[in-house]
Amino acid sequence: MAFEIHIINGPNLNLLGQREPEIYGHETLSDIEALCQKRCKDNGANLVFSQSNDEGKLVDLIQQSRTSAGGVIINAGAYTHTSIALHDALKSLECPIIEVHLSNIFARESFRHHSYISPLAKAVICGLGSRGYLVAIDALSEQSHDEGK
Amino acid sequence: MAFEIHIINGPNLNLLGQREPEIYGHETLSDIEALCQKRCKDNGANLVFSQSNDEGKLVDLIQQSRTSAGGVIINAGAYTHTSIALHDALKSLECPIIEVHLSNIFARESFRHHSYISPLAKAVICGLGSRGYLVAIDALSEQSHDEGK
Amino acid sequence: MAFEIHIINGPNLNLLGQREPEIYGHETLSDIEALCQKRCKDNGANLVFSQSNDEGKLVDLIQQSRTSAGGVIINAGAYTHTSIALHDALKSLECPIIEVHLSNIFARESFRHHSYISPLAKAVICGLGSRGYLVAIDALSEQSHDEGK
Amino acid sequence: MAFEIHIINGPNLNLLGQREPEIYGHETLSDIEALCQKRCKDNGANLVFSQSNDEGKLVDLIQQSRTSAGGVIINAGAYTHTSIALHDALKSLECPIIEVHLSNIFARESFRHHSYISPLAKAVICGLGSRGYLVAIDALSEQSHDEGK
Amino acid sequence: MAFEIHIINGPNLNLLGQREPEIYGHETLSDIEALCQKRCKDNGANLVFSQSNDEGKLVDLIQQSRTSAGGVIINAGAYTHTSIALHDALKSLECPIIEVHLSNIFARESFRHHSYISPLAKAVICGLGSRGYLVAIDALSEQSHDEGK
Amino acid sequence: MAFEIHIINGPNLNLLGQREPEIYGHETLSDIEALCQKRCKDNGANLVFSQSNDEGKLVDLIQQSRTSAGGVIINAGAYTHTSIALHDALKSLECPIIEVHLSNIFARESFRHHSYISPLAKAVICGLGSRGYLVAIDALSEQSHDEGK
Amino acid sequence: MAFEIHIINGPNLNLLGQREPEIYGHETLSDIEALCQKRCKDNGANLVFSQSNDEGKLVDLIQQSRTSAGGVIINAGAYTHTSIALHDALKSLECPIIEVHLSNIFARESFRHHSYISPLAKAVICGLGSRGYLVAIDALSEQSHDEGK
Amino acid sequence: MAFEIHIINGPNLNLLGQREPEIYGHETLSDIEALCQKRCKDNGANLVFSQSNDEGKLVDLIQQSRTSAGGVIINAGAYTHTSIALHDALKSLECPIIEVHLSNIFARESFRHHSYISPLAKAVICGLGSRGYLVAIDALSEQSHDEGK
Amino acid sequence: MAFEIHIINGPNLNLLGQREPEIYGHETLSDIEALCQKRCKDNGANLVFSQSNDEGKLVDLIQQSRTSAGGVIINAGAYTHTSIALHDALKSLECPIIEVHLSNIFARESFRHHSYISPLAKAVICGLGSRGYLVAIDALSEQSHDEGK
Amino acid sequence: MAFEIHIINGPNLNLLGQREPEIYGHETLSDIEALCQKRCKDNGANLVFSQSNDEGKLVDLIQQSRTSAGGVIINAGAYTHTSIALHDALKSLECPIIEVHLSNIFARESFRHHSYISPLAKAVICGLGSRGYLVAIDALSEQSHDEGK
Amino acid sequence: MAFEIHIINGPNLNLLGQREPEIYGHETLSDIEALCQKRCKDNGANLVFSQSNDEGKLVDLIQQSRTSAGGVIINAGAYTHTSIALHDALKSLECPIIEVHLSNIFARESFRHHSYISPLAKAVICGLGSRGYLVAIDALSEQSHDEGK
Amino acid sequence: MAFEIHIINGPNLNLLGQREPEIYGHETLSDIEALCQKRCKDNGANLVFSQSNDEGKLVDLIQQSRTSAGGVIINAGAYTHTSIALHDALKSLECPIIEVHLSNIFARESFRHHSYISPLAKAVICGLGSRGYLVAIDALSEQSHDEGK
Repeated sequence: MAFEIHIINGPNLNLLGQREPEIYGHETLSDIEALCQKRCKDNGANLVFSQSNDEGKLVDLIQQSRTSAGGVIINAGAYTHTSIALHDALKSLECPIIEVHLSNIFARESFRHHSYISPLAKAVICGLGSRGYLVAIDALSEQSHDEGK
Repeated sequence: MAFEIHIINGPNLNLLGQREPEIYGHETLSDIEALCQKRCKDNGANLVFSQSNDEGKLVDLIQQSRTSAGGVIINAGAYTHTSIALHDALKSLECPIIEVHLSNIFARESFRHHSYISPLAKAVICGLGSRGYLVAIDALSEQSHDEGK
Repeated sequence: MAFEIHIINGPNLNLLGQREPEIYGHETLSDIEALCQKRCKDNGANLVFSQSNDEGKLVDLIQQSRTSAGGVIINAGAYTHTSIALHDALKSLECPIIEVHLSNIFARESFRHHSYISPLAKAVICGLGSRGYLVAIDALSEQSHDEGK
Repeated sequence: MAFEIHIINGPNLNLLGQREPEIYGHETLSDIEALCQKRCKDNGANLVFSQSNDEGKLVDLIQQSRTSAGGVIINAGAYTHTSIALHDALKSLECPIIEVHLSNIFARESFRHHSYISPLAKAVICGLGSRGYLVAIDALSEQSHDEGK
Repeated sequence: MAFEIHIINGPNLNLLGQREPEIYGHETLSDIEALCQKRCKDNGANLVFSQSNDEGKLVDLIQQSRTSAGGVIINAGAYTHTSIALHDALKSLECPIIEVHLSNIFARESFRHHSYISPLAKAVICGLGSRGYLVAIDALSEQSHDEGK
Repeated sequence: MAFEIHIINGPNLNLLGQREPEIYGHETLSDIEALCQKRCKDNGANLVFSQSNDEGKLVDLIQQSRTSAGGVIINAGAYTHTSIALHDALKSLECPIIEVHLSNIFARESFRHHSYISPLAKAVICGLGSRGYLVAIDALSEQSHDEGK
Repeated sequence: MAFEIHIINGPNLNLLGQREPEIYGHETLSDIEALCQKRCKDNGANLVFSQSNDEGKLVDLIQQSRTSAGGVIINAGAYTHTSIALHDALKSLECPIIEVHLSNIFARESFRHHSYISPLAKAVICGLGSRGYLVAIDALSEQSHDEGK
Repeated sequence: MAFEIHIINGPNLNLLGQREPEIYGHETLSDIEALCQKRCKDNGANLVFSQSNDEGKLVDLIQQSRTSAGGVIINAGAYTHTSIALHDALKSLECPIIEVHLSNIFARESFRHHSYISPLAKAVICGLGSRGYLVAIDALSEQSHDEGK
Repeated sequence: MAFEIHIINGPNLNLLGQREPEIYGHETLSDIEALCQKRCKDNGANLVFSQSNDEGKLVDLIQQSRTSAGGVIINAGAYTHTSIALHDALKSLECPIIEVHLSNIFARESFRHHSYISPLAKAVICGLGSRGYLVAIDALSEQSHDEGK
Repeated sequence: MAFEIHIINGPNLNLLGQREPEIYGHETLSDIEALCQKRCKDNGANLVFSQSNDEGKLVDLIQQSRTSAGGVIINAGAYTHTSIALHDALKSLECPIIEVHLSNIFARESFRHHSYISPLAKAVICGLGSRGYLVAIDALSEQSHDEGK
Repeated sequence: MAFEIHIINGPNLNLLGQREPEIYGHETLSDIEALCQKRCKDNGANLVFSQSNDEGKLVDLIQQSRTSAGGVIINAGAYTHTSIALHDALKSLECPIIEVHLSNIFARESFRHHSYISPLAKAVICGLGSRGYLVAIDALSEQSHDEGK
Repeated sequence: MAFEIHIINGPNLNLLGQREPEIYGHETLSDIEALCQKRCKDNGANLVFSQSNDEGKLVDLIQQSRTSAGGVIINAGAYTHTSIALHDALKSLECPIIEVHLSNIFARESFRHHSYISPLAKAVICGLGSRGYLVAIDALSEQSHDEGK
């Protein structure tokens, strides 16, 4: 059975490409999804890609990944810094988790420097834009292959 | 008219029994609901039992208890520590509130030591597992009887 | 085309008029909406008025105002103090934002003294009750007229 | 006897209109006084308008309002954040107090986010420029009428 | 041999029933002891019940429970918040510990929100009055039965 | 019946006069007791004077003053800064309490600047040496006379 | 030449007797001055008594006491907690300083718990009302006599 | 027209030379003024030299320098650490500001380590005694010459 | 001319592969250098790879990259958290900087959660082991190509 | 007359050897006393060895060492971190004090990292087990010999 | 024998003139050395001028100044804020120390506001650029002349 | 093969005996080395003794002890309080570590109260002067003998 990767995106990420394109570029979340789709295919993995502005819905999405996902990539947006509920949901997963942020959150306001997700993550990648997702897909895929040996 | 007790459960409690059963046991939230159902019946009380991963939905559930509940038992999970919105919703209740946690939150990470609910609660019970709910039901029922005298 | 004002209300504000009327008065959120409707009409503006107990839904409502609103008035209730997600959503707006609170939050518990919304707002009005909304409508309308000159 | 409103302005507000007009506009404190004068007249109220750079003098001004003022509007400038003496003087008043700031102090340096005046105020208005004073006059006048009924 | 429960009470609890009876009720510590005595008997357990105002004496009492107690219930009163010595004594116990407080300490002064005992306790019960002791007796007894199986 | 004043002294005060006499003078605690005895007699009051190095014993002494004392003067020494148990015991008193320190504790180490007793005291006197006790006796006596009128 | 005592009073103390007489009593600052005048006369001392709402004026008053005062009694009101300038002025004095407060500042808001004056004072007296001033006069007079021996 | 330098001195600096001469030397503020007068003359600059113990008066003095001063040298004494009002007044200046302290404030109490003036100053000089003023005059004069080229 | 990438490694990274191989694996810093060498070659870039345990030497290495490097990858080890000197050296670079850590520092001790390098970095990658270096090389190379267009 | 050393042990140290022997070893406090007895004899010193769980009793024991001890060795257990009363008692001693802990307290919970005793001690020894006492005896004895020369 | 002045420069100061010349000007550290050389010669003093990026080397340089320097001027760059080792080395000097910074560090990031050097310095000069060094040379030279009298 | 002990000394310890001999005595680091040499010989151990002012060099020295040392004694001087790099180097050792300080660092400035080394040390000895090294040698030797049995 194919290795399955869940990519879960948090609040306001649905606005990508429309908001301040001179800064964030014209890439939309759909564009990123397409890139991830292709990369997963190249790696022989299936992708489940989702986004929600709602903390409770994100908890649901994480819970749904419990049975099927071999790896979870999460960009929890603003909830990264405030949500113990996401922390708890992620804690119930047994597969590896990679935390991704498009921008370098450590070069922004101090309230973005703490993450409730990082202590549970295998890796944290920020500032690489959409490339961050692809790097995370590669890392999860390779680990999967290693374990499959 | 029968005394009505609302038991409201927060995020990730729907996973009970499936997550780390060697630690939390095999008891599911449905099992707990059944135990509570029976205990309420023994006490001559009606039970409304709910769970949500969503903060806004939990605010709704608390608001709905305003008119009918004679007592509210709340295990707000991770929102216990972060939600002023639940605090405000609970503040609008006139009936007694009991805060319950399955585990002893004070023996866990420091970010679980503060509760926005405790200042509004009549009692706080943690670490007694599902028994905590039953104790809370008894306490609310007895107080109701006392006031009914 | 008429100038459009979005008024967005956060958790528990749906209870206005029912909760502690001796303190908050008998004015409901519908009453406030009617007052705002009339004031907007007087100012030649259209009004979109909404409320939700749900943080994610509020993010949606703010995002929806991006294309049509000439000004946003927000009373985010308890999320004012905890939500970086609302902060981020509001940051994506280009129109002016006015933060309104019915009561004087600075005379209440210290956890209500910090706002994630204030740094993004043109103005903050608290303690004026429903009048705060009307003042905000006037301010946004006048600024619109000035810019229209 | 006519209702009397005292408007008390703190340090550096005498420089209005001369300092950074591209930011603060060309409106001087005299201009604001004239606007307030007119609005009070419209509301059937008398106005006492003052300014001082001196903390002690401002304490005197507040004390003088004790016997005659039906409402006090205060923009204490920098003393807002440092003066317990003004806090104590204001505490001795029995009439309602409204705190006004021309700019949104919450969007400025963190040392401007705390106010010793807010806990004593009925309302806080900031970021509305001179309009803030007029809104405060209206609110005090209306309350006076209500009580006069 | 019968299961033995030690209940240890800290400073000022000897005043129960005499101090502010309109708040704390007329129940004295002797009354509570009698209730506990009865409940233990019902559960087939022996009870050792003690109280002291003295931190050192309480350390002694805890140490004495090391060899004979199958469970310890402790209401350390004010020492809950200040005594590392009690913490250390409790740490040397191998039997389960339940922390009880008559009132909800989390709704009181902030210096009562931290407990040196909680991290060592199986459960924490507060705000249930004397019922808290009985609940703790039941929990310890039942666990004892489970282990005895 | 004569008015009774209890003076309770905490740890290390038994060393007065022997320790660093060049600083604290040659006055012993017995000397102070004699001065207080005389002053009480002059004021028509009875004196109960005690000292202990033991926190628990001090709690006992305070509790014993509950029924007979018309006023309590307490110099709790180092326990002033650490004992919530003394705070609780003093809180159960209905008579006025005056806190006395021989030296000015606010000119000493920062860990002596906080007192758990001050919030419960009618007055705080420090730095006046043994005179502080006499001033406290006078104040309690006079209040007693006023109330006796 | 007679011993001279300066009593310096800070902001809002001129309102004594007019403000909340049910709490502070009907004693005015003039009444207190008269009491102090009499007590000084009894002790063979001269009194210089002053009050100002102005921090700079209070610095002047303290500086003026440098050459003539044998002792200074200061009730700096709100400036107690904020004024390093008063601290510096008092530091230049060679005579003993006693800090007096009418109420027990340690039982009030936490921002009144720190004093810039206490580290420089020989004694601190609070909560004794006007009696505090008289006690301070006695202490300074007696010390003067002792030194005069 | 000659370049004009304003030197503004804060509270207690009028005592220089009289207070602790063994530490601060016998140089008075008049002596320093004379030295500054001579140095300005040598540099072809005019000097306006002032001192006040009053925060409000210092705000006035700074405001008066707005139109005529080509450079401001300020030793705000204790107000350095507490006055946002001076900060605001200085912020309205367009000419360069140099902050001077006679002693090294960073080797003194920690409450003297923060300055509300430093963020606005071109340079900070402390510990050089009266030489600090002369260095500041030279720096302002030279910059003026450079700009005059 | 070929694009040049400098990879700078901080203290204790020379021990890789020898220290706790069961945790960190058997990969040495030389192995990583070889991997990076190959990846750079594939990307048409030159590599300068260095390591030092010495903060000053690391400052030198960063300064040396100023003229020749088109991108810098830094794993500053423990100096990440303490060195403002490295921060300042990096600040003088004009080329992009990527911060890499082998392990997820956010899942370790709290003193590893702050980085003086992150605010200057384009991206931060941690927890991907040696892959982190390769990802960084790719990102710098691609950006270089984009700019070369 | 022989040199006398007092060794004072605080709460829970009476449990040594019984509690977690796999960690603390089988050495009891009596064993340690015997070792110390022998070492003192070897050094020609007399030993007074005591233990108490009671803070007040420990104050007494320290006070009793004032007249006879040439050196005090104290292992105050948990009171190390909380007792200003012990601090004050030790401050009254004129002989040298050495603080001993069996385990390395700095490798334990953060609430064990602060000591009220260290600032008064000549030396602090922790983590050497019972050897720490012997080292302290040697150090005190040698200093005594040096002074006796 | 001539008076000798050591000027010691810390990390990244070797980059002066090359880095951001539009801000820091084109003056290099060699230019500053030449200016200092000339000023020392004018004052009849010898100069030893050094720079290092290495904390340990800077400790060495300070130690070397112990025997020969009559005064030390130090611009420790980033180590100012982090190095207790430099603090200790400077503490061993008997000659006066002046701390110099080219820019006004108090107008920069908050982590530059604390200095481990200031408490040991006679004077602190910042924001005067290279002039700061010359002022320091003059101050040390003059003091040397005064002491030579 | 003989047991080998490495003693590593940090910054400024090379100055011992030359700096403030009235305080630290005339013992130099060479004297201490000789004492340690002799004690090691007595214990049948080899000694490697080193000192450096350089953090990076100290990391090297610790790394070099990895293969040969049976125990490490470290007096890291000022780096004790600031160096995570030393912490990391020490963490890679498998032999026991003892931390030594000549003076009692807990009786000095608060910035010397935290150590990055203590959590990794078997024991901490401070305030015993050079004796501290000898005690540490004995402890390491004995443990070695015990393990050799």
